[in-house]
Amino acid sequence: MSAIFKKGEVITNDYFTGTAYLEMLVPEGAEYNCPIGNVTFEPGARNNWHTHDGGQILLVTSGEGYYQEEGKPAQKLQTGDVVTIPADLKHWHGATKDSEFVHLAITTNPQKGGTNWLEPVSDAHYNAL
Amino acid sequence: MSAIFKKGEVITNDYFTGTAYLEMLVPEGAEYNCPIGNVTFEPGARNNWHTHDGGQILLVTSGEGYYQEEGKPAQKLQTGDVVTIPADLKHWHGATKDSEFVHLAITTNPQKGGTNWLEPVSDAHYNAL
Repeated sequence: MSAIFKKGEVITNDYFTGTAYLEMLVPEGAEYNCPIGNVTFEPGARNNWHTHDGGQILLVTSGEGYYQEEGKPAQKLQTGDVVTIPADLKHWHGATKDSEFVHLAITTNPQKGGTNWLEPVSDAHYNAL
Repeated sequence: MSAIFKKGEVITNDYFTGTAYLEMLVPEGAEYNCPIGNVTFEPGARNNWHTHDGGQILLVTSGEGYYQEEGKPAQKLQTGDVVTIPADLKHWHGATKDSEFVHLAITTNPQKGGTNWLEPVSDAHYNAL
């Protein structure tokens, strides 16, 4: 598996389970209004359930992972998949148990706000996928 | 060279030299305000000089190409490169003579307007790179 964009640094906040990395490719700012991060999840890693005030777009560049909206089955994601996440919709994303997973994450409508972090995706929930 | 995102259809407008393809990954629209296209240039292909009313971001996913701002030398681009193009800045982009070139193109601040197409990049200019 070859990386396309820079892997960046380990994410050290409390909103991830397992090890993930973030490189900001385009920073926040009023000139472009389009923050873009490159996120790499090691196998088994995922973020907490969360919402975005202005939505988010994921562009999968490598590996296999999951995207799940509250109340729906998890969707398997692969290289080339595109996910548009509406504002205020509770969801999570992350790697499968056996594969690294890399996606670009674009914050849409950043002037509407940021990310609201909620509870972790439990091992029981994740291991049942 | 492996494709990541869909290649789409041949671009048939008059603003390109050579053969290029476009797949819209995220359409225009008010929910995300973030149109994203995947653009594939065959070797030697490039777009005309142009400006964007609200700017653009390029994320290079494969191959080798050029990005040139008016009055500056052309920059060589490779997989993993990120280019932020300010509003109203005259520029062009495209493949090198010997390589395919693939980038995501994100229209920033789409509410400010679109793309203003100008003259082609002449063979004399391109072949001197």
